[in-house]
Amino acid sequence: MDTFKVMELKQSIFDDNDIDAEKLRSELKEDRTFLLNLMSSPGSGKTTTLKATIANLKDKLRIGVMEADIDSDVDARTIEETGAKVIQLHTGGMCHLDADMTRQGLKGLGTGEVDLAILENIGNLVCPAEFDTGAVKNAMILSVPEGHDKPLKYPLMFSICDVVLINKIDVMPYFDFSLEKCREYVLRLNPNAKIIPISARTGEGVSEWTDWLLAEVNKWNGGEA
Amino acid sequence: MDTFKVMELKQSIFDDNDIDAEKLRSELKEDRTFLLNLMSSPGSGKTTTLKATIANLKDKLRIGVMEADIDSDVDARTIEETGAKVIQLHTGGMCHLDADMTRQGLKGLGTGEVDLAILENIGNLVCPAEFDTGAVKNAMILSVPEGHDKPLKYPLMFSICDVVLINKIDVMPYFDFSLEKCREYVLRLNPNAKIIPISARTGEGVSEWTDWLLAEVNKWNGGEA
Repeated sequence: MDTFKVMELKQSIFDDNDIDAEKLRSELKEDRTFLLNLMSSPGSGKTTTLKATIANLKDKLRIGVMEADIDSDVDARTIEETGAKVIQLHTGGMCHLDADMTRQGLKGLGTGEVDLAILENIGNLVCPAEFDTGAVKNAMILSVPEGHDKPLKYPLMFSICDVVLINKIDVMPYFDFSLEKCREYVLRLNPNAKIIPISARTGEGVSEWTDWLLAEVNKWNGGEA
Repeated sequence: MDTFKVMELKQSIFDDNDIDAEKLRSELKEDRTFLLNLMSSPGSGKTTTLKATIANLKDKLRIGVMEADIDSDVDARTIEETGAKVIQLHTGGMCHLDADMTRQGLKGLGTGEVDLAILENIGNLVCPAEFDTGAVKNAMILSVPEGHDKPLKYPLMFSICDVVLINKIDVMPYFDFSLEKCREYVLRLNPNAKIIPISARTGEGVSEWTDWLLAEVNKWNGGEA
């Protein structure tokens, strides 16, 4: 039943990832493919959020997902059940993807056939923040059990994201998590960040997120900057 | 009230970290200092677990803590309240510590005066697993909200740890977490791993962990291998 591909990524040969990432964005613009880079800690709910995202958007957009992992194909199997196109990327131990590795994944996925390509990056708040993948927008998930102080400890990640999803708000009563403090810490680093509290499990808040995403995809693919 | 030091670590100049890590362990043996390397994802409860650990052992051992972070001194402030000796280490963006960076931290802490030195490594399940810090034992925390599938996705981390603490068991009823499956996945990778379910917040299970740690410290400092 392995209908999805597993692809072993090669390390990039490019010296300047920033230049290569800009080049990839131009290629995506020509292909009319919007690339979203989704990042978070391990276990903050990237895959569950993706499932909820696909459920809301699958009738409006052709969606393809790249599941990047050190190892395993657990997430790709989960995404496959949604009916979305999916490819599993193995980084061979590397803690992040750069633009060329992302390009390899997009080729494997076949971008000509998707309006929205989503990269589920390696679960890590450090390394993925340092490498532009060529994505049109960066989003991250911080889950309630991780604590509201994470922006103080991983400032680069919170600085480079266009959207910060605060996930698992359904378990808020069982944790000492201050949404107010979290907002304050994020906005201090990144005044333009869009902060959306959600529960991927119950669906609360998810449509605010997918409405934003759909509008951004339509802007990009419709030719706006 | 900043009684703890903040130290900016320099990148190592050694080619072979494995050799340097063995050398550091010999130095620690001579100093009668036990070094524990504590790893986990961001937000799995390393600092809260450390507080509970210090509370149980502070009358039996002289404890020093190294709080490694990309940025901020949030955790060092928390540990300072326990009365334990603490130093904040900044890695300058690096996602892990190697043996030489750990040695710099130990010098800052002053190992002659501690029986047990604990390194709270960068919150990350990927990079810290790849570098021997020179620790006598490696421990990691997986928290219930992260999910029981994490050993499948971050196998190296679970393979190199002597102890896996399953934290936040007090919120088990609110998450789909199977302790049985988690045990099975960990032991498949690492048959000798000691798995201890705890709640650092309520104190449940913590004494099993600190009893094990105390015995290991006494073995090492008493001269046994």
